[in-house]
Amino acid sequence: MERKKHVSMAVIKRLPKYHRYLQELMANDVDRISSKELGEKIGFTASQIRQDLNNFGDFGQQGYGYNVKDLYNQIGLILGLDTEYKALIVGAGNIGQAIANYRFSKAGLNINAIFDANPKLLGMKIRDIEIKDIDELERYAEENPTDVGIICVPRINAQKVCDILVKCGIKGIWNFAPVDLKVPSDVIVENVHLSESLLTLIYLMHSEAESHLEEEQGE
Amino acid sequence: MERKKHVSMAVIKRLPKYHRYLQELMANDVDRISSKELGEKIGFTASQIRQDLNNFGDFGQQGYGYNVKDLYNQIGLILGLDTEYKALIVGAGNIGQAIANYRFSKAGLNINAIFDANPKLLGMKIRDIEIKDIDELERYAEENPTDVGIICVPRINAQKVCDILVKCGIKGIWNFAPVDLKVPSDVIVENVHLSESLLTLIYLMHSEAESHLEEEQGE
Repeated sequence: MERKKHVSMAVIKRLPKYHRYLQELMANDVDRISSKELGEKIGFTASQIRQDLNNFGDFGQQGYGYNVKDLYNQIGLILGLDTEYKALIVGAGNIGQAIANYRFSKAGLNINAIFDANPKLLGMKIRDIEIKDIDELERYAEENPTDVGIICVPRINAQKVCDILVKCGIKGIWNFAPVDLKVPSDVIVENVHLSESLLTLIYLMHSEAESHLEEEQGE
Repeated sequence: MERKKHVSMAVIKRLPKYHRYLQELMANDVDRISSKELGEKIGFTASQIRQDLNNFGDFGQQGYGYNVKDLYNQIGLILGLDTEYKALIVGAGNIGQAIANYRFSKAGLNINAIFDANPKLLGMKIRDIEIKDIDELERYAEENPTDVGIICVPRINAQKVCDILVKCGIKGIWNFAPVDLKVPSDVIVENVHLSESLLTLIYLMHSEAESHLEEEQGE
């Protein structure tokens, strides 16, 4: 499988969606699907689907379509899901606990440690993982090579925590703190900014309501 | 304040970021800022900032820059943050509870009810809100006009829950279930797809690692 360089971020963001839809198709015992049918399901055009997948290789066959299981497996490989990833969580508040409890097994993510600064939480267990003192973070991360650091601490502490993780060689940061972290170029940060997502929803509701009001006033 | 129509989704997604940075500037007692300085902080060019804000009106003054507090307030108005929004949560699992506990007061979001199908959770309280039986959802939503429905149920139940919320007149859906919901055109859906975010991170880490490997082999 030859991979072309410089795949656009928009395409990359669509890959997990393909993966999810293909998984559903497999669960429904669908063996093969045309790019047109797949497009109708996902809400993309057939041509966009062909273009997206062409970034990664030659999938599908003229007149036959895609073999669902093959494509699912191929996209899984492209996404790097054949590998296991070691992760740790910093911040065992609401979001940290929710993430620790969530099942990300599909992505091969194994959460091996959780840290917090709140003495009340220390020793508490989430899915058999004991919450450790944040003062032990640096030593732990040095001694236990870790792929992904999940940051769920308040905004004000996020950069400091991130710096420790980066210093200990962690190359992937999944950041839930409402801040844009500064990292070296070989470290990947993926943000989940809940407040920004909510503000986007509220903006869109607000402008939808206003446009209706304007239509009514215009009548 | 005149608002131009058809603001692109990319601009809309950047507004909460502007809002967040301006809030930080206010907290640091910064009164005014040039588009160049603001751009350096956020990582945008000065010209992009001027273009973005020009979508919504005439902010800033040649040679003076932006008045931080004014711009913060104006963006707040554009985002619809001068309004209070009534919300309910369906699904009181890990994510539902985390959202119920999270402080979204800035966005004027008041969570007034939480529903779940798990009998063990019924009657339990989160921030003084009792978890109600999901069978009461429809009657509650009919009797209590609600702006935002937050869906935190498993994938398989999400569309069914969404249909009930839409039927009861809810116009904004904040969806945490890993599924693309089907809604009428006047209903806004904003998704937080955690698994897709994680898969994106893993993909980017995976391809970063591969490109390093290729570089080393090429040497």
